[in-house]
Amino acid sequence: MDEDTRDELFHQAKKWVEEAGEIIRNKINDPLTIDTKSDAKDLVTQMDKAIEYFFVQRIKQEYPNHLVLSEEGYGDDVTSMDGTIWIIDPIDGTMNFVQQKRNFAISVGIYHDGVGEIGLIYNVIDDVLYSAKRTQGAFRNDVKLPKLKERLTLEKSMLGLNHYWLCDNRLVEGTEMQRLVRKIRGTRSYGSAALEFAFVAEGILDGYLAISLSPWDIAAGMVIVNEVGGVSTNIEGKPLHILEKNSVMTCHPAIHDQLIQEYIQVGKK
Amino acid sequence: MDEDTRDELFHQAKKWVEEAGEIIRNKINDPLTIDTKSDAKDLVTQMDKAIEYFFVQRIKQEYPNHLVLSEEGYGDDVTSMDGTIWIIDPIDGTMNFVQQKRNFAISVGIYHDGVGEIGLIYNVIDDVLYSAKRTQGAFRNDVKLPKLKERLTLEKSMLGLNHYWLCDNRLVEGTEMQRLVRKIRGTRSYGSAALEFAFVAEGILDGYLAISLSPWDIAAGMVIVNEVGGVSTNIEGKPLHILEKNSVMTCHPAIHDQLIQEYIQVGKK
Repeated sequence: MDEDTRDELFHQAKKWVEEAGEIIRNKINDPLTIDTKSDAKDLVTQMDKAIEYFFVQRIKQEYPNHLVLSEEGYGDDVTSMDGTIWIIDPIDGTMNFVQQKRNFAISVGIYHDGVGEIGLIYNVIDDVLYSAKRTQGAFRNDVKLPKLKERLTLEKSMLGLNHYWLCDNRLVEGTEMQRLVRKIRGTRSYGSAALEFAFVAEGILDGYLAISLSPWDIAAGMVIVNEVGGVSTNIEGKPLHILEKNSVMTCHPAIHDQLIQEYIQVGKK
Repeated sequence: MDEDTRDELFHQAKKWVEEAGEIIRNKINDPLTIDTKSDAKDLVTQMDKAIEYFFVQRIKQEYPNHLVLSEEGYGDDVTSMDGTIWIIDPIDGTMNFVQQKRNFAISVGIYHDGVGEIGLIYNVIDDVLYSAKRTQGAFRNDVKLPKLKERLTLEKSMLGLNHYWLCDNRLVEGTEMQRLVRKIRGTRSYGSAALEFAFVAEGILDGYLAISLSPWDIAAGMVIVNEVGGVSTNIEGKPLHILEKNSVMTCHPAIHDQLIQEYIQVGKK
């Protein structure tokens, strides 16, 4: 994708993200219809659907040859990464949206022929937009994010991970993860994968580990983290498949290999 | 304590908290000297000390017969709850202060003859002050917080707890806590006990469990949570000793007994 196209797309996507955020803020105190999807903890509201519909309508109108891969089903059945694909989570952190009415984000990643070109993560209530264009750095609102700090050890790292990592799970041994929790400086859990990616880019977290994420949870975050020098792989250190569910590890490069070799591989099931 | 005294003290304490917040905000990007206390994860900075000193100086000047119980040692050696005692954490969430430069709070509780009269928790960077006077409700800035919602089940609860609950620990069986994590709607971990108390009062969390907290971590929060109808006990359901370290459970009353009986007691060591 050439720079002009990328700039134009970025401008358009940012405008829609901000408009969608405005819609959500205006209705944040309206009564919600809450449904569940795959299980009782997988929530969806009419707002998730309305915001996704908002994006799909506009993208299809403006860019009829682009595809949309999105959480609630208004997008396309995307089977290859050819062409330009918008990967959208209308509300990342739906549980926070429902209970807290904050700490959730709109996440929009735009990929061209498999390459992440644009990432936008909008913390709607705090009105903070994390954004990046490939090769042009990442921003928090209008402020350019610095590259990740030069040095970091695992002992001084703060990681985002949910509590399931320490429960019996199909991926790793809980006991090895306990060893990790004791080794590092601290753990946090915020309940929005997109925001946790943004926090890694910002240095608020030094890494974020997730057991299973969908394309729309990671598409924007990967672009943003990449622009500050962070790395995103699955927990085996292999590339993430953008069309599939993945285990995810996005972090400062200084701790990436050690996390995998000394903790995750050791406890690998 | 009569109402006029309480009002006057509240007014004074609020003023100092806001002044201290201003000092912190002005110096938030200055280089920090970071020391460790009991262990490598127990951080203290010159800012913790300076802010505590700020409070102790003013309290001793204005209220020479009041006592101060505080984290960094400028206060008194308090051995009884007689009289009026200010219980202060100058920066609750020091690790967040150091790494994130946000998500920390000034916490000030004022107790008279053992009764919590005033609570102030100030999220310095977001400029959000949670406050309460006994019998007069709790506030988020100038907005009165509603009483906690009428009904709540454990299945629909979101709890704040750190990841150590799921590691081998001296209090409870990790496996029982795993069962709890799977039962409830969600878990979060924010890294500031004072803010997590405030979030319980606000309904952002339905409960917060901590393995071991000091008086200054809980003194303000207990007053605030109490004013919206929440309950604070140790994890056996017994009263908290305000001069000692405690395990802590502050939550919506609808889930308090079930948490203890079906999860914590079962896994009690």
